[in-house]
Amino acid sequence: MLRLYDSRLSGNAWKVRILLTQLGIPFERVTLDLAKGAASEPAFRAKSRFARVPVLELEDGRTIVESAAIMLYLAEGSSLLPDDRYLRAEVTSWLTFEQADLLRALALPRFYHMRGIANEMAGRIADFQEGAYVALAKLDNWLATHEWLVDNRYTIADIGMYGYVSMASQGGYDMTRFPSIAAWISRFQSQPGWVPLVQEA
Amino acid sequence: MLRLYDSRLSGNAWKVRILLTQLGIPFERVTLDLAKGAASEPAFRAKSRFARVPVLELEDGRTIVESAAIMLYLAEGSSLLPDDRYLRAEVTSWLTFEQADLLRALALPRFYHMRGIANEMAGRIADFQEGAYVALAKLDNWLATHEWLVDNRYTIADIGMYGYVSMASQGGYDMTRFPSIAAWISRFQSQPGWVPLVQEA
Repeated sequence: MLRLYDSRLSGNAWKVRILLTQLGIPFERVTLDLAKGAASEPAFRAKSRFARVPVLELEDGRTIVESAAIMLYLAEGSSLLPDDRYLRAEVTSWLTFEQADLLRALALPRFYHMRGIANEMAGRIADFQEGAYVALAKLDNWLATHEWLVDNRYTIADIGMYGYVSMASQGGYDMTRFPSIAAWISRFQSQPGWVPLVQEA
Repeated sequence: MLRLYDSRLSGNAWKVRILLTQLGIPFERVTLDLAKGAASEPAFRAKSRFARVPVLELEDGRTIVESAAIMLYLAEGSSLLPDDRYLRAEVTSWLTFEQADLLRALALPRFYHMRGIANEMAGRIADFQEGAYVALAKLDNWLATHEWLVDNRYTIADIGMYGYVSMASQGGYDMTRFPSIAAWISRFQSQPGWVPLVQEA
């Protein structure tokens, strides 16, 4: 069985759980306690060269790191990743835009708020917001005329975008500016197999 | 013929030029003057939803944006992108790590230096360096025992990593800390078909 190393609140790992659930692939979940330094332990670092979650462990013990790479691997051959070469490029385009322009800018302010250090990090949060509001406006603009990111259908591009964008307000972002993103989040959460970030055991 | 929209100094566009040259694919190069706002003009924005370079325009007029997506598209079926599903995941893992952890942190300090505003941006540069030195150390550690990033052979993962890492010192990074990265850069620049960032006409 596949094994997913994640943490309770990682948005990148959440994306992979949503995908595995929607693909109907059974998996064992190993939830690390990052606050206790679990990602830095040598046994885990041998699985994750970047010392972070998510990590997908295959049945033969090999591992894949980075959520976009894991999603592209898992979705191969399914309806969530187009076969057409151009449409696949569109999917990877959105996945890398999210990682380059939004991931850190949304995730780190959220982390500062959760840790109660948002006040002392106010300058850094402002720097992140300056770039991320521009990127969010581009996303909102696209979603004003597209139901889903690629090919008018639900794909892993949407899953990759959803994780941190749906939690942006936890990092102090005013998401009321982006009505098309809000409508897309509603559509996303209505998809069969959607699971919340925190699931009761 | 394929058309590549780039700029004179974009590292992301440089990656695509190296790849096109190494694949032996002829292309027309359209170099935008970003300082004059060329990326914001409506005709260009219709080609690039993110209003930036590189953009690959296909013969039928469709465009692909984001360097990682363009490289995955172009390298399909070539020796620079493995066919094996696991090795492809390794390639996309490195491509997204570079975009998430290094791209902005290396490119923006370089831009501030080029524009002569590094002093006033000193705080922001320090924030970028804090994260990027950690990522560079992970890369250096990997390259201490691997000749190339994936499968002991030259792939687009190396090209994606090379662009901004090779120019990091222009953003004030002390790259003498990373001898394995330096050796890999030398190997990279010895590959047939490598082209410099700025080519004489």
